[in-house]
Amino acid sequence: MNAATRTFSTEGDYKVADISLADWGRKELDIAEHEMPGLMSIRRKHAASTPLKGVRVTGSLHMTIQTAVLIETLKDIGADVRWASCNIFSTQDHAAAAIAATGTPVFAWKGETLEEYWDCTLDALSFPDGNGGFLGPQLVVDDGGDVTLLIHKGFELEQGDESWVNSASGSHEEQVIKNLLKRVHAERPGYWTRVVADWKGVSEETTTGVHRLYQLAEKGQLLVPAINVNDSVTKSKFDNLYGCRESLADGLKRAMDVMLAGKVAVVCGYGDVGKGSAHSLRAYGARVIVTEIDPICALQAAMEGYEVKTVEDTLGVADIYVTTTGNKDIITLAHMQGMKDQAIVCNIGHFDNEIQVDALKGLAGVKQVNIKPQVDRFDLPNGRSIFLLAEGRLVNLGCATGHPSFVMSNSFSNQTLAQIDLWANKDAYAPQVYILPKKLDEEVARLHLEKIGVKLTRLTSEQADYLGVPVDGPFKPEHYRY
Amino acid sequence: MNAATRTFSTEGDYKVADISLADWGRKELDIAEHEMPGLMSIRRKHAASTPLKGVRVTGSLHMTIQTAVLIETLKDIGADVRWASCNIFSTQDHAAAAIAATGTPVFAWKGETLEEYWDCTLDALSFPDGNGGFLGPQLVVDDGGDVTLLIHKGFELEQGDESWVNSASGSHEEQVIKNLLKRVHAERPGYWTRVVADWKGVSEETTTGVHRLYQLAEKGQLLVPAINVNDSVTKSKFDNLYGCRESLADGLKRAMDVMLAGKVAVVCGYGDVGKGSAHSLRAYGARVIVTEIDPICALQAAMEGYEVKTVEDTLGVADIYVTTTGNKDIITLAHMQGMKDQAIVCNIGHFDNEIQVDALKGLAGVKQVNIKPQVDRFDLPNGRSIFLLAEGRLVNLGCATGHPSFVMSNSFSNQTLAQIDLWANKDAYAPQVYILPKKLDEEVARLHLEKIGVKLTRLTSEQADYLGVPVDGPFKPEHYRY
Amino acid sequence: MNAATRTFSTEGDYKVADISLADWGRKELDIAEHEMPGLMSIRRKHAASTPLKGVRVTGSLHMTIQTAVLIETLKDIGADVRWASCNIFSTQDHAAAAIAATGTPVFAWKGETLEEYWDCTLDALSFPDGNGGFLGPQLVVDDGGDVTLLIHKGFELEQGDESWVNSASGSHEEQVIKNLLKRVHAERPGYWTRVVADWKGVSEETTTGVHRLYQLAEKGQLLVPAINVNDSVTKSKFDNLYGCRESLADGLKRAMDVMLAGKVAVVCGYGDVGKGSAHSLRAYGARVIVTEIDPICALQAAMEGYEVKTVEDTLGVADIYVTTTGNKDIITLAHMQGMKDQAIVCNIGHFDNEIQVDALKGLAGVKQVNIKPQVDRFDLPNGRSIFLLAEGRLVNLGCATGHPSFVMSNSFSNQTLAQIDLWANKDAYAPQVYILPKKLDEEVARLHLEKIGVKLTRLTSEQADYLGVPVDGPFKPEHYRY
Amino acid sequence: MNAATRTFSTEGDYKVADISLADWGRKELDIAEHEMPGLMSIRRKHAASTPLKGVRVTGSLHMTIQTAVLIETLKDIGADVRWASCNIFSTQDHAAAAIAATGTPVFAWKGETLEEYWDCTLDALSFPDGNGGFLGPQLVVDDGGDVTLLIHKGFELEQGDESWVNSASGSHEEQVIKNLLKRVHAERPGYWTRVVADWKGVSEETTTGVHRLYQLAEKGQLLVPAINVNDSVTKSKFDNLYGCRESLADGLKRAMDVMLAGKVAVVCGYGDVGKGSAHSLRAYGARVIVTEIDPICALQAAMEGYEVKTVEDTLGVADIYVTTTGNKDIITLAHMQGMKDQAIVCNIGHFDNEIQVDALKGLAGVKQVNIKPQVDRFDLPNGRSIFLLAEGRLVNLGCATGHPSFVMSNSFSNQTLAQIDLWANKDAYAPQVYILPKKLDEEVARLHLEKIGVKLTRLTSEQADYLGVPVDGPFKPEHYRY
Repeated sequence: MNAATRTFSTEGDYKVADISLADWGRKELDIAEHEMPGLMSIRRKHAASTPLKGVRVTGSLHMTIQTAVLIETLKDIGADVRWASCNIFSTQDHAAAAIAATGTPVFAWKGETLEEYWDCTLDALSFPDGNGGFLGPQLVVDDGGDVTLLIHKGFELEQGDESWVNSASGSHEEQVIKNLLKRVHAERPGYWTRVVADWKGVSEETTTGVHRLYQLAEKGQLLVPAINVNDSVTKSKFDNLYGCRESLADGLKRAMDVMLAGKVAVVCGYGDVGKGSAHSLRAYGARVIVTEIDPICALQAAMEGYEVKTVEDTLGVADIYVTTTGNKDIITLAHMQGMKDQAIVCNIGHFDNEIQVDALKGLAGVKQVNIKPQVDRFDLPNGRSIFLLAEGRLVNLGCATGHPSFVMSNSFSNQTLAQIDLWANKDAYAPQVYILPKKLDEEVARLHLEKIGVKLTRLTSEQADYLGVPVDGPFKPEHYRY
Repeated sequence: MNAATRTFSTEGDYKVADISLADWGRKELDIAEHEMPGLMSIRRKHAASTPLKGVRVTGSLHMTIQTAVLIETLKDIGADVRWASCNIFSTQDHAAAAIAATGTPVFAWKGETLEEYWDCTLDALSFPDGNGGFLGPQLVVDDGGDVTLLIHKGFELEQGDESWVNSASGSHEEQVIKNLLKRVHAERPGYWTRVVADWKGVSEETTTGVHRLYQLAEKGQLLVPAINVNDSVTKSKFDNLYGCRESLADGLKRAMDVMLAGKVAVVCGYGDVGKGSAHSLRAYGARVIVTEIDPICALQAAMEGYEVKTVEDTLGVADIYVTTTGNKDIITLAHMQGMKDQAIVCNIGHFDNEIQVDALKGLAGVKQVNIKPQVDRFDLPNGRSIFLLAEGRLVNLGCATGHPSFVMSNSFSNQTLAQIDLWANKDAYAPQVYILPKKLDEEVARLHLEKIGVKLTRLTSEQADYLGVPVDGPFKPEHYRY
Repeated sequence: MNAATRTFSTEGDYKVADISLADWGRKELDIAEHEMPGLMSIRRKHAASTPLKGVRVTGSLHMTIQTAVLIETLKDIGADVRWASCNIFSTQDHAAAAIAATGTPVFAWKGETLEEYWDCTLDALSFPDGNGGFLGPQLVVDDGGDVTLLIHKGFELEQGDESWVNSASGSHEEQVIKNLLKRVHAERPGYWTRVVADWKGVSEETTTGVHRLYQLAEKGQLLVPAINVNDSVTKSKFDNLYGCRESLADGLKRAMDVMLAGKVAVVCGYGDVGKGSAHSLRAYGARVIVTEIDPICALQAAMEGYEVKTVEDTLGVADIYVTTTGNKDIITLAHMQGMKDQAIVCNIGHFDNEIQVDALKGLAGVKQVNIKPQVDRFDLPNGRSIFLLAEGRLVNLGCATGHPSFVMSNSFSNQTLAQIDLWANKDAYAPQVYILPKKLDEEVARLHLEKIGVKLTRLTSEQADYLGVPVDGPFKPEHYRY
Repeated sequence: MNAATRTFSTEGDYKVADISLADWGRKELDIAEHEMPGLMSIRRKHAASTPLKGVRVTGSLHMTIQTAVLIETLKDIGADVRWASCNIFSTQDHAAAAIAATGTPVFAWKGETLEEYWDCTLDALSFPDGNGGFLGPQLVVDDGGDVTLLIHKGFELEQGDESWVNSASGSHEEQVIKNLLKRVHAERPGYWTRVVADWKGVSEETTTGVHRLYQLAEKGQLLVPAINVNDSVTKSKFDNLYGCRESLADGLKRAMDVMLAGKVAVVCGYGDVGKGSAHSLRAYGARVIVTEIDPICALQAAMEGYEVKTVEDTLGVADIYVTTTGNKDIITLAHMQGMKDQAIVCNIGHFDNEIQVDALKGLAGVKQVNIKPQVDRFDLPNGRSIFLLAEGRLVNLGCATGHPSFVMSNSFSNQTLAQIDLWANKDAYAPQVYILPKKLDEEVARLHLEKIGVKLTRLTSEQADYLGVPVDGPFKPEHYRY
């Protein structure tokens, strides 16, 4: 979709691709609500007390059907919500339309340019103050940390440190952010300082975003309390693992209709995302090769019967490459030039820099042939071709619809509980990274059992005494790994 | 898609949804050719000798990208081809457009009415004789036996037996066929008799179509030699099993985006299609219950750890129902009324009568809500809702894109070899059902090994003598089950 | 166990290792009877009519607990039974003792020499005639065809053709057989001719034995009607597949206590035995490489994600080698010399000549170190060592206890039905190879469903008409592959 | 084996079943050393510096072949070792003999009485002081905490608190311990106080033992620093998970030779041990039902497609019960009375009190029939029978040989590193529970990669900077769950 030719529906305080998709979006929201029992249960429980009453919440998280249920949950418990997506390809336009149609400001469409993406992020951060100016959020729901980054960098600039915005940029996107910050600096003097004054906390969804938060906290630069939602067991061991187990193949199939059986697939990284990805590909009959830097995860892969090699060792042999690492330069240009003809390359980790997409596009003599949205064939100078999915961004969101509702209900239950917790403790929490207590983690799981017919056993008090745990939990020590 | 509003591209001798999709279709055909090594190898081998030179071939087989490669293979080895789909939802419109754009008459679009479907079948049977009249095909590629049925029933009518066309119809579709036959009878007197005179054989793709051929042959009513392609090992044990293992979940995901992990899924039937379906669902973390009538298949299911029950026993418990039987009335109206709220019902077996769709639609008080093409919610009078996919027709073709290319390359290699064999033996074969010799079956497999890096071991002559088989095969007795 | 030091219990008409083990054997027989519902059901059904009343039956089949239940079933339906094992390592001594203790002549112990083995086979063939001479069996239960071979070769000799017994032998075992035949020729003139006169049929258990029967029949040399039990679906697709899936790892574990996870295992052959073996090893986390000669089976292996290579390609990489072929020279001496240190080599196919055991033992400079019964380390001149299990004979029977009872109940139900059928049709059948009718095959499956809680669906008469099959089966055409 | 009739080899300072088994044990030790690369690498690394030179180490840990390699490693790095098993059935007698034969005091045989067991534990604790008296250990290797319990309770008694030793006992074993303590109190006045004075630390192997240590530490009663070896990733996520995945079925097979395919198996608990157990049973084709108290683990089980129910719901349906919890009264007498005929009950969790064995044995009218060592049939008054394996103790150790060497190499590498660490920091550590640093955990994994052919990828410095981790690790935050 080309920005120049897109006709936006922007009559209200939103930017979506096509507001007429709202009805369809609503029908799918209805389906999703049945699949998100935890989130709906939390909504019902807090609908009367509205613990986020009047709280300004900015969300930056893939604008999918599931996120729409999260947004409506936050609204039902009182919040004043503005939303952007956290990925240029991850918006489901009918979901965005359904949310916009209810009057909630949402700024997201599938296929944004990077400039549009960051403008949308700013829109989601800008609550009209009624006087033509803008207030910032009191709470942030972040996925990958883009909102957190923007506020921190904007604040840094207003504090007088212009070194970063004036430095050379390592990527086009970095420059887009800097340009935006400079523009805001000019147009809204003191804006980020006012935002920070009101900001009470952020809950972060991803491994990568959390990693950045810990780094900020270690340096003493974190401006607000943060809740690490990713490391709730019911998030990282569910969404990352079981979500990717379902959505990776979904993305591959919708993009390429490729037979997985008999193929050699390389999964780069064997964390939770990699585990789910490898499991799924093997179940289809692919032969999976894993690459790892961490000897423990490598040994886990070997114990499951996966061959563990380097990417270099697989060139000319493998048909499919999937990056799952959160790291950069996993698939380099040199790798892509060494791959067999018709190899498929995609990313389900975090940023598009897991694959050297810019280098690929810039290769002299390369020819990019678009097959359909989010599917490109690159004809290389060496005479071979490779397929790149979703331009190296998340293949499950770019080429399919992301994780299914049921697993996202777990993640978003944690998000909602985190938002409630941050607000309730806004005066108590320090600017550190917190994890939700295990009792809440167990509660999130509990809310999802009935829907799928699970019947729990209950400890007798004698057994609880024997174990030294309460009858109703929490049942495990903090270091327990599940 | 509504027939009234569709604008056909019908300037040439074809009917497709949108001829402008041809370029996209061609790009995907290019991809598919790389994934169909067996078919492409046969094409290359026979391109010079053109064993089907000038032979009129009618195909009735899902008009997908893969079928397009089959069509072009038949053309490259000399055939004069006309094509229709064998299912109202299974056409990929860009595939049909790509074929039409090359001048091959194709009559197929996704979302035909039953009347349109059978008209398309007739179009595919009607080779212009240059004088404003029509010749019939000399060979038929059939999938489900609709062309074979039409010719046999038309011939029966022209032989003076009007009993069937005037009998009461058990379904709407049956009546559509009868109406067509009566119309042709009026418009083209003696047409079917002339068709039969030229007709030299049919190769049939499916379990169900083959079953009908054997029944015709047993009654002495089969008009031409037939080759049972389905029971080539490289067809039924590949396409049915490995194809469905990939395409069932694909259909479910594109239709419903549903989380499969944790769900209870009922797979009705544990033949090859059921085996592939059950395997796939379990691999995603669904709990699979199998229903079976055959104690051997039931015992196989149990040996794989599936619970084997009746559909009745699963009502109120299961979330997903998949029929895979080739039989009718597997999911009855009463079943659907007993299902839990939000249950999903679909068919990957053969005809839509595996599910009592007509009865569901006719239920007093039912409300059908279309979510998106091929996905309907039925709100039942009992207050619960169920989802029906592809109106009960093949979910992998209706809601996704059917089997992937690589496995179809096996099936279509058999089809092509069968067509060549039928023509070569047109004077030798009797009107019976034949199976391709095992040597050819092994050859089809062999043509697919290199692509996926398989390295065969070769018998020494001492080993071959010890086993009593030729060094180059065939290696197994006819009764071997693989 | 050394023959020289073994104290046999031979007071009665039997030779077993230790008759005092009979009580233990009986307890395990009791357990097995609960796990063999099909066989017990047939026993109960025919106990009154005793269809084999007074019929002399010789069995040559692994003398395990499960076989003991088969023996007692044959006796309960009237037969006069004598038994030997068909493998020098496969006898469970407590099973043999339990049978001997009931007065049934059995000649089998774990760890026979080849001379002892063939003497036992002769003992099982020699029914005392009451006058100091011997009658032969009227029916034979064969596994691998050793009894059939002996009778045919003995008869050939008595017909005056001495070419084979005087020819050079390719193995030690071949010479043992020839010596035996010459001795019998001298001691019992005309014995084999009298045996053949009474012999009415043989039912054969294995792929290999069946293969030999077909070869004899093709040459017109088969002396009696034979029933191919192996190719009952409920035999080859159950015992070979599901049996090996359980017993291969069992043999490996009892022999070597080796961790399978993380190991590279080579499975030579991907027939039913290979399929079960590969599945089991992968499930434990081994990385499985398959070798195959047949392109169809090779493609099946690839579709399941197994790497398919030659044995040569795996040398230095693989930790475990399993032969499953029924062919010879699969693992050669050269292979074993190229293996990595501590590699494990075993056979679950048929004969020990799948591995070149004789060549290994004869290698100059090799040192054989016995670790425990059926486990030997060979220190090779190249400084590496390999482990050979069960001296290359069936590892599941040599190192563990063979297939579990439930799956053998299927196989032995077929055996029993075959014996009944052979006797009932002794005047009708020609000296050909027969397969049990599908109806009986389905019946065998049916008898095993209740035990494991399977509930079959029953066709309505409308459905049966639609399919063109009887409501009660048989449900599938003969060529159906399951 | 009955204590009264056993002839011990007790000429030296050891008690083993049969010293003549030492040669066999040594051969298996040689095999195990090849399968334990981590442990052997640590042995080689520290053999020269002997960091435990002269340190008295008492081990209480299953006296298997693998443990023998651990013992010899501790000796090679300088320790003075005495050893007992931590389970009455878990000793491999040839392993104990091999160790005894080298002059290391070992007190263990398969099939001890509880009295013998605790006497052996005391023997392992009693280092001769050269004057007819005894010194205690300086370090303890514990598995389940029996040595730690004995020292703490003995010390408590000597401190004047006689309340526990004089209290009523909940089990026979508890009384045995009290009797022992009273006897030592009488025979060796002040012994435990002297032991405690020298004692510098304990490393603990199991979930259960660790749980007790944390409880002691919380109450301020822990006497020495402890290292929680169980929660090294390379222990709990390897040994518990992958070990049980291999050894549960091994135990079931050696005990019962039962077909697992088609059976219904109930796995009580879905921690690491339960996960491995459930995976293994399903892979064999059993239908697995899980019971859980923890909603998170229950949801994990459901996401893998297991049915989650209570034990009560499975009675009359399930064939096999496996407890994996570390809790007590998981399988009650009432449960056992409700089971279907021939059900098999076993424990792979921790103590035998997971199953109410005492209550079963005490049931009026019950009849216990021993089938073979560690396999008993209980004929219940209701007419049904059940099988109890290893008298409710660990089935993998009681009925098979425990976990395989390779996975134990991980666990025991951690044990060895923990012992070295405890001694090196004996003056620095407080009486708390420590975990080995992640760097060492990764190192243990790294030592096992080469053996199984794993090739690690190495971070570039740019990538390491991007991630904010050192190029050589550690790679993950402490809370990472793997």
